[in-house]
This record gives sequence, C-alpha cells and structure tokens, in this order.
Amino acid sequence: MEESSSSFFPEPNAAEAAAPHVEVDGGQEDEHDPESNSLQQPLLKRSPTLTASHYAMVGAKVSHIESLDYEINENDLFKHDWRSRSSNEVLQYIFLKWTLAFLVGLLTGVTASLINLAIENIAGFKMLYLARLVKDQRRFCSSGSCRYITGFAYLAGVNLALTTVAATLCVMFAPTAAGPGIPEIKAYLNGVDTPNMFGASTLIVKIIGSIGSVSAGLDLGKEGPLVHIGSCFASLLGQGGSKKYRLDWKWLRYFKNDRDRRDLITCGASSGVCAAFRSPVGGVLFALEEVATWWRSALLWRTFFSTAVVVVVLRGFIEYCNSGRCGLFGRGGLILFDVSEVAVSYHINDLLPVAVVGVIGGLLGSLYNYVLHKVLRLYSLINERGRVAKLLLSLGVSIFTSICLYCLPFLVPCTPCDPSLGAVCPTPEGSGNFKQFNCPNGYYNDLASLLHATNDDAVRNVFSTSTPNEFRAISLLIFFALYCVLGLVTFGIAVPSGLFLPIILMGSAYGRLLALALKSYVHIDQGLYAVLGAAALMSGSMRMTVSLCVIFLELTNNLLLLPITMFVLLIAKTVGDSFNPSIYEIILELKGLPFLEAKTEPWMRNLTVGELAAAKPSVVNLRGVEKVSRVVEVLKQTSHNGFPVVDQGGPSPMGTPANTTEIHGLVLRAHLVAVLRKKWFLKERRRTADWEVREKFTSVDLAEKGHKVGQVLITEEEMNMYIDLHPFTNTTPYTVVESMSVAKAVVLFRQVGLRHLLIIPKYQGAGISPVVGILTRQDLIAHNILNAFPHLANKKGEKGRNSHS
Amino acid sequence: MEESSSSFFPEPNAAEAAAPHVEVDGGQEDEHDPESNSLQQPLLKRSPTLTASHYAMVGAKVSHIESLDYEINENDLFKHDWRSRSSNEVLQYIFLKWTLAFLVGLLTGVTASLINLAIENIAGFKMLYLARLVKDQRRFCSSGSCRYITGFAYLAGVNLALTTVAATLCVMFAPTAAGPGIPEIKAYLNGVDTPNMFGASTLIVKIIGSIGSVSAGLDLGKEGPLVHIGSCFASLLGQGGSKKYRLDWKWLRYFKNDRDRRDLITCGASSGVCAAFRSPVGGVLFALEEVATWWRSALLWRTFFSTAVVVVVLRGFIEYCNSGRCGLFGRGGLILFDVSEVAVSYHINDLLPVAVVGVIGGLLGSLYNYVLHKVLRLYSLINERGRVAKLLLSLGVSIFTSICLYCLPFLVPCTPCDPSLGAVCPTPEGSGNFKQFNCPNGYYNDLASLLHATNDDAVRNVFSTSTPNEFRAISLLIFFALYCVLGLVTFGIAVPSGLFLPIILMGSAYGRLLALALKSYVHIDQGLYAVLGAAALMSGSMRMTVSLCVIFLELTNNLLLLPITMFVLLIAKTVGDSFNPSIYEIILELKGLPFLEAKTEPWMRNLTVGELAAAKPSVVNLRGVEKVSRVVEVLKQTSHNGFPVVDQGGPSPMGTPANTTEIHGLVLRAHLVAVLRKKWFLKERRRTADWEVREKFTSVDLAEKGHKVGQVLITEEEMNMYIDLHPFTNTTPYTVVESMSVAKAVVLFRQVGLRHLLIIPKYQGAGISPVVGILTRQDLIAHNILNAFPHLANKKGEKGRNSHS
Repeated sequence: MEESSSSFFPEPNAAEAAAPHVEVDGGQEDEHDPESNSLQQPLLKRSPTLTASHYAMVGAKVSHIESLDYEINENDLFKHDWRSRSSNEVLQYIFLKWTLAFLVGLLTGVTASLINLAIENIAGFKMLYLARLVKDQRRFCSSGSCRYITGFAYLAGVNLALTTVAATLCVMFAPTAAGPGIPEIKAYLNGVDTPNMFGASTLIVKIIGSIGSVSAGLDLGKEGPLVHIGSCFASLLGQGGSKKYRLDWKWLRYFKNDRDRRDLITCGASSGVCAAFRSPVGGVLFALEEVATWWRSALLWRTFFSTAVVVVVLRGFIEYCNSGRCGLFGRGGLILFDVSEVAVSYHINDLLPVAVVGVIGGLLGSLYNYVLHKVLRLYSLINERGRVAKLLLSLGVSIFTSICLYCLPFLVPCTPCDPSLGAVCPTPEGSGNFKQFNCPNGYYNDLASLLHATNDDAVRNVFSTSTPNEFRAISLLIFFALYCVLGLVTFGIAVPSGLFLPIILMGSAYGRLLALALKSYVHIDQGLYAVLGAAALMSGSMRMTVSLCVIFLELTNNLLLLPITMFVLLIAKTVGDSFNPSIYEIILELKGLPFLEAKTEPWMRNLTVGELAAAKPSVVNLRGVEKVSRVVEVLKQTSHNGFPVVDQGGPSPMGTPANTTEIHGLVLRAHLVAVLRKKWFLKERRRTADWEVREKFTSVDLAEKGHKVGQVLITEEEMNMYIDLHPFTNTTPYTVVESMSVAKAVVLFRQVGLRHLLIIPKYQGAGISPVVGILTRQDLIAHNILNAFPHLANKKGEKGRNSHS
Repeated sequence: MEESSSSFFPEPNAAEAAAPHVEVDGGQEDEHDPESNSLQQPLLKRSPTLTASHYAMVGAKVSHIESLDYEINENDLFKHDWRSRSSNEVLQYIFLKWTLAFLVGLLTGVTASLINLAIENIAGFKMLYLARLVKDQRRFCSSGSCRYITGFAYLAGVNLALTTVAATLCVMFAPTAAGPGIPEIKAYLNGVDTPNMFGASTLIVKIIGSIGSVSAGLDLGKEGPLVHIGSCFASLLGQGGSKKYRLDWKWLRYFKNDRDRRDLITCGASSGVCAAFRSPVGGVLFALEEVATWWRSALLWRTFFSTAVVVVVLRGFIEYCNSGRCGLFGRGGLILFDVSEVAVSYHINDLLPVAVVGVIGGLLGSLYNYVLHKVLRLYSLINERGRVAKLLLSLGVSIFTSICLYCLPFLVPCTPCDPSLGAVCPTPEGSGNFKQFNCPNGYYNDLASLLHATNDDAVRNVFSTSTPNEFRAISLLIFFALYCVLGLVTFGIAVPSGLFLPIILMGSAYGRLLALALKSYVHIDQGLYAVLGAAALMSGSMRMTVSLCVIFLELTNNLLLLPITMFVLLIAKTVGDSFNPSIYEIILELKGLPFLEAKTEPWMRNLTVGELAAAKPSVVNLRGVEKVSRVVEVLKQTSHNGFPVVDQGGPSPMGTPANTTEIHGLVLRAHLVAVLRKKWFLKERRRTADWEVREKFTSVDLAEKGHKVGQVLITEEEMNMYIDLHPFTNTTPYTVVESMSVAKAVVLFRQVGLRHLLIIPKYQGAGISPVVGILTRQDLIAHNILNAFPHLANKKGEKGRNSHS
C-alpha cells in the first residue's frame, strides 16, 4: 500500500518529447498494470502491484488486473452479427440464459446440501465421540485428569488434521480459495477481474476446504464460501466448463462476453447466500444491496428464479434426510434458527434497551472492523514469508482454538438440570442441547453446551427462547470474549472462511448478555435479544440494512420482530458509519482492488477531466488504416488496452472538408492482437469492404482473451503491410468534453459500466486533436486522484463529509 | 392517441431556410410541449396533447409536461455555492434530509391509520346496521320483501352518498386525485412531471375521497391512494409546504432541486406501500422494483428508515385501539391477513396443482390487463364529455355495485352452522365472519358473508384456513365473477382507487375455487390456495416478483409458504409477459406519459443519434455574451428548454487559435427568464467577473420555476444591451458523438438521469458547428422514433423479441 509520491507530473524533457514511444519495460508488458495509460511511468500514482490473493495483502503475489468490458463493443462485426441473428438464435439465447440460471441454482443448492451434510456429520460425530470419551473411558485410564487429557488430545488432533487438509489445499492449489471471496465478487461485478478467482480448482478447493475448516471447529462460517462457490459455478457454466478443458458448445458462443457473465455471477452470488441462510429473498437482496454495482429489473427476476431453485433443492434434501437417512443432517426444518414460537410483545419503554443493543452493536461492529484491519495487515506480513508460514499460522490458530474450546468450560460451575425441561437435559450419548462434559449426572456444563457443539448449534443454543436461566452470565461473558478473540485471529488464515457466522456468534452472545444485565428493564425474551444483538453487530460491521433484515426474518421466522429489527439495524449502521467503512470496503482497500465507489467526493466537482488528462502522458492514437509495424510498436511499447482510431481528412461519406479529423472510435488491444494472430494484412493502404473481414473473422473470434503480442511472429515483409482497423473499431465509445467535472465523469463511468472514456476537446478547430485523453477506472479512483492532486485532499479535510451521500 | 403521420421530415423550402426564427405560436408558447426542440413543427411526431388527469385518457385536459432535471446543473453560481458551503451547512442538509424522511414516514403512518380508522368504522357500522335492519325491522314493515327493500334502499343510499362525496371532490377540486396515482409517481421518478400531481388539494381530496370510495363498498382499495398520499406528503415537505402558502424556511433552500425531491418522493412511495400492507420491507422493495427508475444504496437506507417509522406508528395506533377505543378499528394485529397458524407441508406432487394456479393467474392477469385497457379507453370517451358525465358514471357504478352486493346472496342456499365452530356462527348483532342475512337462525349465507363485509374482511374470509366447507363452490364462483366485472368497471371512475385489493379479491376467489375443484389432488389448505391465487393474479397483472413475494410474506406471516409463492409468481409473470405489458405500463402508455424504458429495442443499435438529429430542425445556439433582444426573440419563438452556449474564437484562457469554436455548455430557459426578470444587463459586450453576478444572484434564485418570458417587460433600450450567459451556463452537460447508436444514448440518458443530451460532430475542423443537435426525452421514446423512421418498425417485427431483455 506504500506508494512513492514522486514522478507523477513528468518533467518535460526533450528526449521524451521527441521520442514518445521509448521502450521502458523490454517487452515484459504483462508485468505491468495493463490499465495503465502511460508510456513512461505509471499515471496517477496507481499501485502497480495489485494483489489477488486474500491473505497476501501487502503484495506477496503480484499480478495484473484487467478491467472488464460491460459496455457493448459496437464494431462492424458485432453489428453484422446483431443484424443477422435470426429469431431462432434469439430464442436459443433466451432459453440458454434461463437454463444457465437454473443450473446455477441447482448446482449451488446440491453442493450446499452436500457441504452441510458433510459438516454436520463430521463435526457432530467428532463432538459425540468426544463426549463419550470424556464420560466413560474405562479402558485406557481411570483417573479424571487422564480422561480429560485424552479427550483434549483427541479433539485437538482431529481439528488439526481437518485444518491441515483445508490449509494445505488452499496453500498448494488455490490461494484464491482462502477467505470469503465476497469482496472479489463485489469487485468483479464492479468491473475488476481478479485472476484465478472463479476457476475449477478454486471451486474444488473451496468446497473441500470449507468442509474441513468448518468441521475443524474454527470460528468461521460456510456462508461466504458458499457465495463464492455459487459464483464459481456461474462463471464456469458461462464459459461452458473450465477454461482448460472447455466444451465448445455452439450455443454458448453468445455468452462469451463480460455482460452475460456478470449477470450469471450475480445469480450465483444470490444463490450462494440463499443456500447459506435458506433465505431466497434475502439472497436476492444481498446481491442487490451489497454485491452488485449494476442492477436492472430483468436481473432481479433472474436471480429470484435461481434462488427459488436453490430453496426447492434444499427443501428436497431436508425432506429426504428428515427421517435420519443422512446421519446427523436434516433434523431441523427449513428454517435455520427458528424463534417463531415465542410471542413478541413490546411497548414504548422497550425501545430504550433495544436502542442500546443497536448502539453497542454499532460500536462493537466498527471496533471489530478496525481491529480486524490491523490483524489482517499483521497477518499479511506473516503470510508473505511463504507457504510454510501460511500453513503454520493456520495450524497455530487451530491449536489455539482447540485449547480454548476444550479448557474454558472447566472454569464454570455445573448447572443442575431444570426438572421442567428434564427430557432434554444431557442424554447419555451426549447429543442434544445440553452437554454434561465434566459435570455429574443430572447436571450440565452450560459453557460446554455452547463450545462443544457445531457453530450452528451454538447459535441455536444462544437464540433459544423461553429459557431465561439456561446460561449463566459468566459463561456468556467467556463465550463472548472467546469469540471476539477467535473472530479476529481466525479470519485471515489460509482457509476458506466466512464472516457471517463469527459475527452472529459474537452478536448473539452480547445480546443475550445485555438482556441478562438489564434483566429488570427487559420484557422481551432473552433469545430474541440474542437475535437482535446478532443483527446489530452484523449491521455495525457490514452496514447492510434491508438485506440483513430479510435474512434475519427468514432465519428466525418471526415477523413480529421485524419492526424492532429494523430499528436496531438502522441505529447500528448509523453508529458504525460514523467511525469507519464497512468490513468489505476495508478488505477491498487492503487488497488494492480498484473498486469504483458509487458516491463521488465533493472535491471532484472542482476538477475537470481535462485537468486530470493533462496530468497524464498524452494518448496514443491510431489511424483507420495503419501500418502493421506501427501497430506492433504501439502494442509492444505501451500497456494501454484501448486506442482511439482517428482518421485524418481522407475520404469520408459525407464529403467534409479535407482538413478535418474524424473520431472513428476505439479499438481494443485484444482485438489488435487477434488481427495480428490471424495475419489479416493488406498490401496497400485501403479501406476494406464488409465481406472481406467477415470471410476471416466472426465476432466470436474477437471475444477470446489472454493472448499477448509477444507471442505473435511477424515477418519483416508483413511489417510493411497495412491493417484496416475500421471493422474492429467500436464506433460508439462514450465521450466527455474536457470541461466535464470529474464527479460527473465518475457517474457516467460507473452507471454505464465503462472501461474506457474518451475525452474530446472543448475547442473545435483545425489542428486540434479530436481526442485529448482516455480515462480508465484507475484514473477515476479517488485515492489515485488525490495522490496526483494533493491540494484537493486539504480541501477535502475542510469540507468534512460528502453532502450528497 | 391519434397522430397524423405527416410533416415529420420538413420540406426544405426557401422561406424556412432563410428565416429560421419564424414565429409560429404568437406568444402562446405555454400551450406547446416545451420539451419540443423544434421551431416550426413538432419533431419526431410527438403527441402535443399529453394528458395529466387519470380518466381523461384521450385528451380531455391538455397540458404540457416538463421534464425534470435530475442532473446537477454545474454553473458558476452552483459551483460557488458548492465551494462556499460550510461543514455546518452540510450537516444541516444531512440532518434535514433525515428529518424529512422521518416526517414523511410519520405523516403517512398517521394518515394511513386515520383513514383505516374511518373506513373500518363507516363501512363496519354501515354493514352492522344493514344486518340489524334486515333481521328485525318490526317497526316499519313486517313482510319479508318490505324488509329486504328497505335494507336495499338503505345500503344503496349510503353507498351512493359516500360515492357522491368522493366523486364530487375529485371532479371539482382535484381531477388528478382520481385513480391510483402510482403510474404518475413512476413517471415522476423517471423524470416526467405531471402537473398538479402532488399538490395540497390533491392530497386532501385523495384522503377524503379514499375514505368515501372505500367505505362506499366499491371494488377498489386504499393501497394505491396511500402510495400517492405518501408521495404528496413527501413533495409538500420538500417544498416546505404548499406552493401557494409556502413557508420560506431557510434550511429548505438546498431541497429546491429535482434530485432531492425525487429521493423524498421515493421515500413517500415506499411509506405508502408500507402503510397499505403493513409491510415495511415490501414497501422498500415495491419502490425499488416497480416505482423507481434510479436507485442507489443510500436511498435504500433512507426509504428503509421511512418505512420503519411508518410501521412503528401503525403499531402504536393498533396497540392503542386494540382495547376497543377506536370503534371497529384495531381488532386485528399488525399482520393484515394472518395465515400462520396452518402447518404447511407439501410434496413433489403438489407442484402440479400449484403450477396450474400460476399459469391460470398469468392468463387471467394478462386478460384483465387487456380488457381493462379497452374499458379505460371507453371510459375516457365518457369522461371527456365533462364533469357531469364523470359524476354520473361514478354514481352509476356505485348503484350497480350496491345492487350486485345486495341481491346476489339471495341466489345461494343457506348453510347450517358447523357445530364445531359454533361460537363464531352468526351472532345476533351481525358482526363476526358469518352473516345470517336472509337465513334462519343457526344458518348463515356464505355469499353474504363475503359480500356484506368490508373488502379487507372479505379477503380475510376467503383466506381463512382449516375451514374446507365454509364456502360453497357456487358462492365462490359468483363472488369471483362479480369481482371480475366490478374490478373492470370500477377502476376508471373519478374516485381515488387502488388496483391491489380488487386483484387480491379476484385472485383469492379463483385460488380457493381451484382448490375446491381439484379437491382430491390438493393436499394444501384451501386458504393457502386462496393466498397463492391472489399472488398469481397480482403477478400476472402487475408483473412484480420479489416485492410481491415479500409483501405476501408480510401480509400472511407464513414463511414456509415462501418457496411455493416464489414458484407461482415466476410462472404467472412468465405467462403474463408473453401476452402484454404490465398494467402500470399500459396505463402509462394510455396517458401518453413519455416514460423512458430501461430496455432498449434491438433496432436502436442500427440508428445513430446523428441520423435522429438530422430528422429534427437544427438546434438554436446562443453566444456566451448575447444581446438581450436575441435572447428574448429565441425564448419567444422557440419552445426549447435548453440552449447550447457556443463561443466563437474570442478571448479564451488557453490561448487557442482565433478560428476555433468553444462549447461552453448549456443554459436553461428557466435561468434565462430569471436573468430577464432581474434585468441583469450589461451596457457593452463583455464577460463579467465572478463577484458581479453573485451580487445579484444566488443559486437559490435560479431554482424558481414557472415564470414565463411573456410576463417580463423589457424596454427598447434594454433590448440593445447584453447578457453574459457564462455564469448561468451548465458547463458540464453530457455529450455524445453523432456516430453513437441510439441504444447507447438511451442507456446514458436514463442511467444518468438527463434532460438534455448534446450531440457533437464526429468530424472536427474549422467551420463545423460544435453542437449538431440536442436530444430530449421525447426524442428517445421508442414510439416516437418509430413514427419518424417507419422502416425500423418492420425490422422490429422480423426480429421478434429483444434478446438483451
């Protein structure tokens, strides 16, 4: 994140001015950020080392990030393809679009069910066996301490083994599978393609790693990973399989564009949330509120369809497993944490304690964000030392977790079973809500009941209603403190990990604690306070409102709680927002992903795009019919991804004067490379006819990505030939006049989903270049602009907050 | 809707070419559509008679509709104001924004509660008294027929009186209060300001009229009107009171812009839905999915806050009234149609009958849309005959409704009370779910139970669960047929009316009927089938998905029904969409509101904005420092609302060559009129300094609307003076190059929320005008373009559907 502040305004020296195409990087263009629009030095002080892996936050793994093209590239080939598309093909496209949305839902639903099945069985049997081991272990040792030590060795060993599987897979095969993946999905939908994020290996590692890490009893959830898994399925389906072993199915050719993949990945993300919380509407809203940058109602409908498929699949699995055919999985119903049986009645004087829950939730949430930020920075120092360091860190956290989970219950006294609940008090097998652990028969250890269970069961226990005396304050306090520490130290390790469940665990504990502390003022059930606490902390950390509200409604099935949930969420978000941004924004910034925010800074109104472009080296234009050597030179010596195509005078259909210049459009690097690879060269400088190019190219050929100009061999003879760029040029790039304020340019760039924005001059006349600059995503990131124009930062300080938030 | 197809391409005759500023409308500029960009004739065959009133659909009331300016007008005054805004003022603004959102919620909640209270009491006591009148009316007549006739006379009389109040108010004082108002709100948020839509008189008439018409037993709901009421409150609060008696509160000056009013009205619309269905999350989603055109997450949060306030207010009222302090109001809980007590269990073989509900819902919904369209066209012929005709139509519908409601129950036989439900069978006072009407004691008339109740109670009756034999098939059939007819004939009359409840009534009846018909195949409760039927018909007619799903969840409080509700909604929407557009889109088109759709037509890619602009008369440019006489002439002779400001050569800060032209920006008609009114004229042609204009103007002065150039008196001497337009010019208008395709221009126009879009030439050079055209909303409406370029329409037919939907 450290950036030197030098060399932004290039010293205008003669050598540079005379030779604008000085080669600086010796052909290693791929090492550079390809969004860079500069020939000599990085423009606008962008960080050239954008990191892609979750835990390598200070640059262990350098890679370039290419922007996605969500705009439609209207070149001649596209237009021909568009016109010639038969209504049959259009129907195929629509059918396929819905089929893919269906498949995304189906695969996500099935995978989520299988993951749940695996986790519930592995973690459940692990805990059952532990209980049995501790309770009667006559065979090996008879003394108490021996039993407990064996028990601990068993628990720590199993947890360590599971963690090792998860961490090793992540470290060796798919570093991008670590962490939740939600920030990267958010960035993808904003137009930033993090490499290796949605591949088949990531998917497989994520699934297995998620099972391992959650079963290992680490303080992390499967929710974030499920969102990522859904998106991976979507991305793979959109490509027609993995990139390496791709099925070249003819129908899929219309999906080889960033727009359709974006839509599919949005479906995948909603499906993932839906599968995680069994919350179909919450899933759609989560994608809408938190993940997606662009939204339209057609997409609302499609994501809704995907989540409907997911929920039908989940319901089918649960119904099938309900009769015990799947081991420990499927015993509950469709609703994860049902608290609907308690009657909710509250009055005006309940609002104050509820407001306290919200305020504390906001404070804790922002504090959590702050500390987690520090911890992640520290971890990245460890993680960048290499694979072994990453692995050791994960294993260390696993051992620490095992020690805490196992030893802390010894600190609390045993609780006698409530005779009115007799039937559910610890059963001999150790299943059920109450764990006996070190207590005599007829007693249970309330902290062990929380800690010696799967995370889901722990939440269910804390949410349990009409049980005012089930948990002691001291146990809840220990539980809360433990999960605060675990939540901070676990998130950054190299295993797939979600943020939702750790925060719900923390929040539910503090909500229930608060209810115990305010016992005399509180008329609402403690279990509901736990729900409110979880919602408040969630909102205080993630800063979502409507989607959280619906997710909690669908998690707990208590509609009457909705008004106070809304109240708590609003308070917690307001309190949290006054301290720091949301946890996902913090992670995005830590990773250095060039995410384009929706809100513009006030000082952006005081800067024009002309001023911004003047601070950059000038743009490289190509002519409509260009020499091959010039194209190769430009491609090799710059790292631009788009070049304006400008025609000088020449023959024009409207018979304009000869001294005019014409903006023909913008041609992409990928398309130029495609032309060079196919060697579609002309002997003389002339414009080609439509049929000529269509004999050689289809619009699908141009959609291929990833080839580099260095790989193309061109002979000396070919170098002197010409290329007609007109058929490949996007004739309708978006433009702004140079007097446009940056604030408005950002609105245009983000709302329309651009990759390049051309700047045209305010003054018209002979001899003025028709394109004075190109803006890319990097140029419009507030952080980058402030580095280039530090005086704006001061003004920013004076103004305080953005008044158009 | 009739439009002549002539005169689109003006014949280039010499007179016109020589005198481009021929006066055509003799100063009656306000009679013309001010969005028109033409000097001589309407461009692009737009309809010059946009109608504003709900029932005057074929042009009874001609009025012009001005587009709203959702873009920030960055002129010098704004920029100065922006820079000089202290952080204290920014805080004031933020505080005020939230206060207004709070007040919108509070007022909507209180008003909704009072409306409910009035309706439940008026309609409830009306029905109670009717039951008593029919049951024992010894005093006046003893024979059966006499009793029934008196009963009918009483019912018809009361209904007629209530309808008269509602219709008279609507016809005399606020024609815009008739109908639901939702299409106009949708249009407002799209940028179309229907006149007199959000005024104080509309608000008051809407409240009283809504009470009257719903109490009168007409087949309409208070839901649509409540949305309109919420929006009216928002609009009035944003202006600081009614336009006529406006409080000029200093803090409100920052709200005198279309953007902030738009946000407030979005809050108002969500509050209205929330108040109507007691559905806070559904309200937010309704605004998001159906009403709003632009959306950002800050707004999501603010609307969520408003609906939270509404729901707290509603809950407070219900709690207060629960003990009987408000007459018949408040006996139920917060949930309107609670069906949560029934256990939902369904299997794979239940999916088929549920799918049938969806398919029939989609068919019926689109059929309803189709027939309602025809009825509304017919009604508009009646309504345009004048106020008396409107009034008579309303009264006729009222009498017809009374006859049906009263007489139809005689057709069905009496049902003996089920002894297991003994306690609730008809009570002597006639309250409760079962109505005795013409039946002996111990029996009830099931059709009367549905018809002699408020609409809400009727829905509750049809939704009632675990009562498989409560209603006969014949009664449900009559009920369904009756409400199909009433739903069609009632909607277009001149009273405030909502569409939700009529559709729910119809849908619930057919759902329950279907469950009766498929008795042997159906394992889900009949009441739940009624809910599904209502959801399906709603989706089939209104084509919403997520918001309807949440509204139904919050209406019925049955989370386990959610997956099949989603299933039904998706099927119904798919079926409906294959026949016609949603009912709101049909009404928008009927009213001729220039609504800009999100989806672009495929043929828009084959047309450039340059071709579109070439079909229009040329744009009128102003110079940076312009003669007063020229400004007055242009304002009087054109009806444009925006003029490009172009400087020729002249002094420029960057020392460009003298033969250049400079696009300075765009100046608005309203601002030119403001300058003329303040008479800020210069003796000589010069550019002014910043302080000069700020002595005379603030940015708030420019925000005033509605003044006309004809009202300004300018002396001969003043005519020869100059105006410096630079300080008033928006220096950052959005522009497109003339080669841009119309599809992309529409995306830009809509996504960024524009009013004017400048077209700049593709060719650059001396002597080329820097602005070749202006596009407005009217130019980009698909319908208008097709009128101008009929050959595109043919292609459209070939292509079938838009493949990017």
